[in-house]
Amino acid sequence: MESLARKSKAICPFMKHQSASALRQMAQSSSLAAKAQGCPVVGPALEARRSYSTPSKPVGAQATDALSPKAVASDAAKPVFLHGSSNETNFDYEAVFEEQVNEKRRDKSYRFFNNINRLAREFPKAHLAKEDDKVTVWCSNDYLGMGKNQEVLDTMNRTMLKYGTGAGGTRNIAGHNRHAIALEAELAALHKKEGALVFSSCFVANDAVLSLLGQKMKDLVIFSDELNHASMIVGIRNSRARKHIFQHNNLEQLESLLAQYPKSTPKLIAFESVYSMCGSVAPIEKICDLADKYGALTFLDEVHAVGMYGPHGAGVAEHLDFEAHLEAGIASPAFKTVSDRVDMITGTLGKSFGTVGGYIAASAKMIDWIRSFAPGFIFTTTLPPALMAGTTASIRIVRQNLMDRINQQKNVRYVKKQFEQLGIPVIPNPSHIVPLLVGNAGQAKQASDILLDQHKIYVQAINFPTVARGEERLRITPSPHHSKDISDALIEAVDDVWTRIGLKRVPDWEREGGLCGVGSPVPRADNLWTDEQLALTNTDLNRNVVDPVINQLATSSGVAV
Amino acid sequence: MESLARKSKAICPFMKHQSASALRQMAQSSSLAAKAQGCPVVGPALEARRSYSTPSKPVGAQATDALSPKAVASDAAKPVFLHGSSNETNFDYEAVFEEQVNEKRRDKSYRFFNNINRLAREFPKAHLAKEDDKVTVWCSNDYLGMGKNQEVLDTMNRTMLKYGTGAGGTRNIAGHNRHAIALEAELAALHKKEGALVFSSCFVANDAVLSLLGQKMKDLVIFSDELNHASMIVGIRNSRARKHIFQHNNLEQLESLLAQYPKSTPKLIAFESVYSMCGSVAPIEKICDLADKYGALTFLDEVHAVGMYGPHGAGVAEHLDFEAHLEAGIASPAFKTVSDRVDMITGTLGKSFGTVGGYIAASAKMIDWIRSFAPGFIFTTTLPPALMAGTTASIRIVRQNLMDRINQQKNVRYVKKQFEQLGIPVIPNPSHIVPLLVGNAGQAKQASDILLDQHKIYVQAINFPTVARGEERLRITPSPHHSKDISDALIEAVDDVWTRIGLKRVPDWEREGGLCGVGSPVPRADNLWTDEQLALTNTDLNRNVVDPVINQLATSSGVAV
Repeated sequence: MESLARKSKAICPFMKHQSASALRQMAQSSSLAAKAQGCPVVGPALEARRSYSTPSKPVGAQATDALSPKAVASDAAKPVFLHGSSNETNFDYEAVFEEQVNEKRRDKSYRFFNNINRLAREFPKAHLAKEDDKVTVWCSNDYLGMGKNQEVLDTMNRTMLKYGTGAGGTRNIAGHNRHAIALEAELAALHKKEGALVFSSCFVANDAVLSLLGQKMKDLVIFSDELNHASMIVGIRNSRARKHIFQHNNLEQLESLLAQYPKSTPKLIAFESVYSMCGSVAPIEKICDLADKYGALTFLDEVHAVGMYGPHGAGVAEHLDFEAHLEAGIASPAFKTVSDRVDMITGTLGKSFGTVGGYIAASAKMIDWIRSFAPGFIFTTTLPPALMAGTTASIRIVRQNLMDRINQQKNVRYVKKQFEQLGIPVIPNPSHIVPLLVGNAGQAKQASDILLDQHKIYVQAINFPTVARGEERLRITPSPHHSKDISDALIEAVDDVWTRIGLKRVPDWEREGGLCGVGSPVPRADNLWTDEQLALTNTDLNRNVVDPVINQLATSSGVAV
Repeated sequence: MESLARKSKAICPFMKHQSASALRQMAQSSSLAAKAQGCPVVGPALEARRSYSTPSKPVGAQATDALSPKAVASDAAKPVFLHGSSNETNFDYEAVFEEQVNEKRRDKSYRFFNNINRLAREFPKAHLAKEDDKVTVWCSNDYLGMGKNQEVLDTMNRTMLKYGTGAGGTRNIAGHNRHAIALEAELAALHKKEGALVFSSCFVANDAVLSLLGQKMKDLVIFSDELNHASMIVGIRNSRARKHIFQHNNLEQLESLLAQYPKSTPKLIAFESVYSMCGSVAPIEKICDLADKYGALTFLDEVHAVGMYGPHGAGVAEHLDFEAHLEAGIASPAFKTVSDRVDMITGTLGKSFGTVGGYIAASAKMIDWIRSFAPGFIFTTTLPPALMAGTTASIRIVRQNLMDRINQQKNVRYVKKQFEQLGIPVIPNPSHIVPLLVGNAGQAKQASDILLDQHKIYVQAINFPTVARGEERLRITPSPHHSKDISDALIEAVDDVWTRIGLKRVPDWEREGGLCGVGSPVPRADNLWTDEQLALTNTDLNRNVVDPVINQLATSSGVAV
C-alpha cells in the first residue's frame, strides 16, 4: 500500500505537490476520497468499481446482462456476508433526503413555487390562489400567447369530444392515429425536413435522442456547448459517449477539439439556437462549417426559437436565410440552407405553440431509426389526440402569422431600451429574452416577491441549478400582447424594486469589472430581427404555403415517417 | 503484452480454459473484444476508458466537470491529431441508421404502426385511416374507458376555456397552479401517502426518480426484478448505482442478494405490481418483509394496477388490505397496511385514468427531495391545466366507482374462460391481462393483421423489445365496456386465426414442455379479485370518502407538497 502511494505520488500532479503528512490527514478526514472522485483518471476507475456491470444491451433484455439471475445465483451460493439480524442498524433514508434539502435551504436555492393561474381571456393576467387576486405574468414561456388562441381551443374541444381525452396506448399499441401523423407532418414541413417524431416533452426528446446516439453509435464523440440545457446534459451523460464541453459559442475551442479526431470518427455537435437564460444565440452557420470540415453531425435545440424566428417561425436556422424562405414559402429554396445543413432540430410544443410536448425533425432514415430504438419514445403513452390536433392547428397559425413575431420583437426592444435608460442591468443579447442580472439568490427571490406582492407583477427569480450561483437573475419574456401600458407598469415597478433593495445598476457592475456581459466592454451582437424585417406585414408572406402537403400527409395512413 | 496475457490466463476463468492458439484466433476475428465487453471485470474497465469522465455533479454545472473548457483548453494546446483535410473520408452516419433498422426488418421486430382513431362515443370502436372503416379495439390501455367519460370531458373543456391550452412554463417558472396542487393532493389521497409529484409520463417518473436515487444516495444498491418495465431499466442504468437483477418474483434469490450487504448499506428494491405483458403479480407483502429485514427502500410501479385494484382503485397494494380500506374509506386503517409499507408508488394518468402523465406518491420529505433535485421534473413544461383538472376529476370518479373494476374483472374472466375451452394459449395470470402466446414475431404480426383486415378487430402484436424474442404474443385488455356480444366476436375471430395460420394451442405447447406457463404444470395463482369481492356494489363503498381533504388541499396555495 505504501509503495502504491509512493508510485502515485511520483505520477500524479496533485499528489506530487502535497506533503506525506498532509495526504495522511486528508485520507483520515476522507477529503482525499472526495478529491479522487473528481480526478479524471481515478474518478472513472472508482465509478467502474462502484457499478457491477455497464450493460450495452437493449432495454428489455435486462436479464441477459452480466448480472443476470443465473450469474447471480452462483454468486449467492457462496455467501460472503449474511445480514438481516435485528441488532444491525438500518440506513436512515429520510435523514439523507432531509439533509440534502436543508442544504438547499441554507444556500437559498430551495424553490418555493408560486400558484399562478394564467387566464386565457385576460392574457397576460393570472390569478393567484384566490380568483380575485390578479397579477400580470411577465415570465411565461407561452411566448406568443397561443395558449389562449380561440381556433386552437375550438380544435382541441372538437377533437376531444370526438376522440376522447387520451390516446390510450403507446404509439405501437393503439396509440398511433391521424393526429400524430398530421402533427409530425406539420413539424417536418415547418422545418423542411423529411420527417419528425413527437415525444412527451423536449426534455424527453433531447435525452432520448442524445443518449441513443451515444449508445448505438460506436465510438461517437459528443461536443457540447457549456450552456446547453439540462435535458441535453442528461442525455449526453446517459449516452456514456466520450464528450468534450466547449466554452459557450467558442468556435476556436470547438475546432481545436474536433481536430483531435480523424474525420472517420463519428462526432456530434450539440448546441442551442437561443440560450434561454441569457438570450445569447449560437453561430449556427459557422458550427455547420466546422461540422462539414470535420465530418460531424449537428444537433440543434431550437426550443426557445421556434415560432419566433424565421419568416414562418421555424427558428433561428430559418431566420439566417430569411429572404429565401420568405420567397420560397412551403418549398425549399434552390440552395442548401442553414436549416438543411443542421442534421437534427429539436423543439417544443409547450412554449410558442402553447400546448405541451416535444419533437425532433431530421432525415427520414434518422427518424425511422429513433422511432425504432429510443425507449423514451417506444415505451410511453402517446399525447392525447386533442392535444396533438390543437397543436397542429397552432403551428399552422403561427407559421402564417408573421405579425406576432414582429410585434413580440418590437415589445422586447421597447422594454430593453427603457431598462437600459434606467441603468437596470439587462444581460445583453440579440433575442427576445430580457434577463435582469441580480447576482444573488436571496435578493433575486426578494425582488420577485416584492414585484408580486406590491406591484402585482409576476417575474420568477431564476436560481441554481438553472443558472450558475452568483448569476441569479429575473428573466422577463415580453409577448406580442404585452402592450406599452403594461410594459410601462413593469418598468416602473422594477425600477422601484431595484432602488428599494439597493440592487446593482449598470455603473455598479462596471466598477466591479462586469458580469454576464453587463458592465463590460463586450461588443454587442446585432438583433436577430433587423429593422427591415420588422417593417414586413403578414401580406408579405407567401400565403399559399401551408395546406397542400399537410393535408395529403394528414389523411395518409399506416407507418409513421 | 505477452506477459500480461500470461497473467490474465492464470487469473481469468474464461481464458484459463482456452488454448493459446484459440485465443490468438479470437483476437484476430475481434470476437475476443466482443467477449471482453461482456466480462464483468474487463467490461466496466473498457467502458470507463471509453468515456473521459463520469460526472457526479448536478446538471447545470456541466462546465465544472473534469472535461471543463479550461481542462480541455490545456489539452488542446498540445494537438495530438490534426484532422479536417479534405482527402479524409467522413463517417457515414446514414449507413449506420439504415443498417440497424434493416436488422430489425430482417428479424421481424421492425414496427408498423396502425392508424387507430378511438371514438369516444362508440367505445371500444375506432376508425382506421378512413372514418367509415371501423374496428373494435381490444388492446388499448384506456382500461376503464375513462377517456370517453362525459364529466371528464366537460371538466377539461371548461378548464381549457378559462385557463388556456398550456401551462406556459415549468413548475418553478409560471407553470405551478391550482390544478397541479389539486391533482397531486388527489393522488396522495388515493394512495394514502403524504405527498405526490406529477411528471410528463410514468416513463419520466420512473427514470427520473430511480436515476436520482442512485446518483444522490451514495453506495445505494438496487435490486431489480428481471421483468421490470423499460422505464425502470433505463432509470436504474442511468443511476449508475450497483445493481442486482433477480429472477421474476423470486423471493429466495432476492433474499440471498440482499443478505450480502450490511443493513447499513442503502438498498432499493424496484418492482411492479402487475407486469403488463404477462399479467403476473408481485408478492408485494413478502417483498416488504424482506425490505424490513434488510433495511431496503421499496419502489413499486403500479402503472398497470391503479384504477383497477383495491376498493378505491389505488392498486394491488391497496387490494391486499381490501376489507380494511373498504371500511376506512378516505382514512387510513388503524394498522400499518401494505401500502404504508411501500416507500414509493409510481403510477400513470394515461391508462385507467384516461389522459396522460405519470406520478410518484411517497412521504413528504421524499417528495420534496425529488421535487428539488430531479432534472426530469425541474426542467420540463407542466402538463396543461385542463389535462390536470380533467385527470383529477377522473381519479375522483374512478375512486368511487367500484362497479367499473368489478365489471372489468367479470369480462376478463369470461374471455379467459372461453379461450381456455378452445385451447387458445392464454398465459396464466391472476390479473386483467389476457396474453395469448404465439412465440414467433412473423406469425404474431400475421395474426394481428388478419384480425384487423378480416375481422375488424384490433389487437396489436407484441414483439421484441417489449417481450423477449420467441415469446411474442397478442395482448388483450378487456374493459368494463367490452360486453358479451363483442367478446364472443373476438373469441370466434381468434379461434379462426389460430386455425388459419396453424398456431400452437395448449396441447401443442404441452408436448413441447411449455412456455411462459402455457402447457406446463405450474400451480396457478388465485385471481386477485375474489368471488366475494366481485359480488360487491358501489353502495358498499364508504361514500363520504373523497371530498373534504381534497377540497381543502385544492384551494391551498404556495409551495407544493
